[in-house]
Amino acid sequence: VLTKRIAVLPGDGIGPEVVAEALKVLEAVSERFGHQFELDVQLMGACAIDATGDPLPESTLQACFEADAILLGAIGDPKYDNNPAAQVRPEQGLLRLRKSLGLFANIRPVTAYDVLLSHSPLKADRIAGADMLIYRELTGGIYFGEKGRTADGAFDNCFYSREEITRVAHVAFQAATTRRNKLTLVDKANVLETSRLWREVVQEIALEYPSVAVDFLFVDNAAMQMILNPKQFDVILTENMFGDIISDEASVIAGSLGLLPSASIGETAALFEPIHGSFPQGKGLGIANPIATILSVAMMLEHFGMQEEANLVKEAVQYALDKKVLTPELNQKNPFRTEQVGGFIADYV
Amino acid sequence: VLTKRIAVLPGDGIGPEVVAEALKVLEAVSERFGHQFELDVQLMGACAIDATGDPLPESTLQACFEADAILLGAIGDPKYDNNPAAQVRPEQGLLRLRKSLGLFANIRPVTAYDVLLSHSPLKADRIAGADMLIYRELTGGIYFGEKGRTADGAFDNCFYSREEITRVAHVAFQAATTRRNKLTLVDKANVLETSRLWREVVQEIALEYPSVAVDFLFVDNAAMQMILNPKQFDVILTENMFGDIISDEASVIAGSLGLLPSASIGETAALFEPIHGSFPQGKGLGIANPIATILSVAMMLEHFGMQEEANLVKEAVQYALDKKVLTPELNQKNPFRTEQVGGFIADYV
Ligand SMILES: CC(C)[C@H](C(=O)O)[C@@H](O)C(=O)O
Ligand SMILES: CC(C)[C@H](C(=O)O)[C@@H](O)C(=O)O
Repeated sequence: VLTKRIAVLPGDGIGPEVVAEALKVLEAVSERFGHQFELDVQLMGACAIDATGDPLPESTLQACFEADAILLGAIGDPKYDNNPAAQVRPEQGLLRLRKSLGLFANIRPVTAYDVLLSHSPLKADRIAGADMLIYRELTGGIYFGEKGRTADGAFDNCFYSREEITRVAHVAFQAATTRRNKLTLVDKANVLETSRLWREVVQEIALEYPSVAVDFLFVDNAAMQMILNPKQFDVILTENMFGDIISDEASVIAGSLGLLPSASIGETAALFEPIHGSFPQGKGLGIANPIATILSVAMMLEHFGMQEEANLVKEAVQYALDKKVLTPELNQKNPFRTEQVGGFIADYV
Repeated sequence: VLTKRIAVLPGDGIGPEVVAEALKVLEAVSERFGHQFELDVQLMGACAIDATGDPLPESTLQACFEADAILLGAIGDPKYDNNPAAQVRPEQGLLRLRKSLGLFANIRPVTAYDVLLSHSPLKADRIAGADMLIYRELTGGIYFGEKGRTADGAFDNCFYSREEITRVAHVAFQAATTRRNKLTLVDKANVLETSRLWREVVQEIALEYPSVAVDFLFVDNAAMQMILNPKQFDVILTENMFGDIISDEASVIAGSLGLLPSASIGETAALFEPIHGSFPQGKGLGIANPIATILSVAMMLEHFGMQEEANLVKEAVQYALDKKVLTPELNQKNPFRTEQVGGFIADYV
């Protein structure tokens, strides 16, 4: 029996609801393949602030260190967002978790599902066949530089070391070699010194991957190209802040934010989470789409080397898409509830 | 006779071609209304580096200081972009010009033209009627903070003072009161201290404009909302880097980058330019769309208080759109050349 220990952080808003469905699917995988998944459920985010004053309590961090992987729902609560004076914020927990575990590469696959082309705001012929993998650096840049106030203003510093760029670039190049051998660096090298360093380092590393064609796009142009011609992208590599923006933008290609999984990988740790937020308005209504979290579990299974298991989960998701067993944002006429979608996918597995 | 002095900076690539057409239209306005426009043509960008070693020679800056307005084509050349080691870059000239003249507010109107709905990658029903005005802060933030290298890395600092935020916020709020009374601040207040300051200051200033409904969007969400539901936006206000990204992204709504004008305004100076770049691949081919530059001239006329003249130019552009007198990207079947489009619009005026 293969045993894996998973730290489960349901988080805030719809987080617990989508995580519950993903765990159903994981349970089904465990039964079918005879694996054992030990779950360690912990508080994180606004719920952790409410309970302990800290968005990432020591016990949660400890559980994450001890786990083989982490499954996260979503965090965030509007009571912090419009309150610039709040001293403690749910997001701080997530940022500290990424940093503490060294989760330097955030990986977001974006695919246009054939059966959902009509749901995208983009014309079908622009997106049909689009299939990209976004590598976002996750533990550096302006997110983690010194920040603060002065007498009359505020500042945020952005710093990147060669080492930080190098390690995430290697994983992105490696991914490109298993795909269509194309890598696009998104930066703002006509203005930022950090971007010029990114370009330099990536040009050097490119020499080690001669099969990969590299191109460079300024982030403003990339934000436009993502919509004009998303099929041009295979692997995208970019720094933390640009990756945040570009990957959320890219989600429109899939037709719903509720479909998009992510993995955040470090030397020793790995975290899996849907890219959507905690959607507090949707909490408790049974309308949250669990597929992004379920596909995050598929990424986790791949990370464990369980390729067959991962493929089965993806097949089950495709079956739900084909049969239109989908939450309201993708099936207005005959919507299914969160737990119905999760149950359907788990049953298939 | 009203006399206005205009510094004309054709710049690089297709810049001179589109500026030539805009000047035809300006000449037509001058004849029709009996105004006098004194043109002072100067070097700027890569062509200025080639000629003088400096992307913004002293004589160009001087001409800009003495002018009532500046008309810029486009700057930039690929020989600098992929050369991280280049010491002098065309963009530095533009950034220095913005800073020297104190052009703190960059204003970009984005409209979905009814006759061009089919050209947008977005579905027509998502964009029909979309009409927004983006206010991008242009002389602060990470563009102008200290930047440089360390032994093992590179840094860019982002700073905003209350004063910098306040002055651009006021012009944006004022614009909102003449439109649909809605203002959206785009920031990343869940991570950046500068964004939290933006939110604070904008919340304070909002009290002075009780008719304006204000909302706040994180930039990642905004990048998505721009595509999912662009009609929700009226006035958007944001900092320099986010504005760069969001406004280029928004250009997909219009159906072509070649349609979008901009104004950059300071206490005493004003610069008008198309938002597209120098498109070096298109240079000399007669395929550059002059409409963005012509509409930038319309914004210049408005700035001069010549509302009737501005309206006539916009009417002439609409007529070219209706009659499909358009460059290839908007009229593949029966394309017109740059100078034909410019001539047609000038003739109408
Ligand atoms: C919640 C927030 C801090 C986070 C980020 O900006 O990284 C989120 O937007 C994401 O992309 O995971
Ligand atoms: C050329 C570049 C420096 C410039 C910017 O980033 O501001 C351009 O993209 C723009 O938006 O005017």
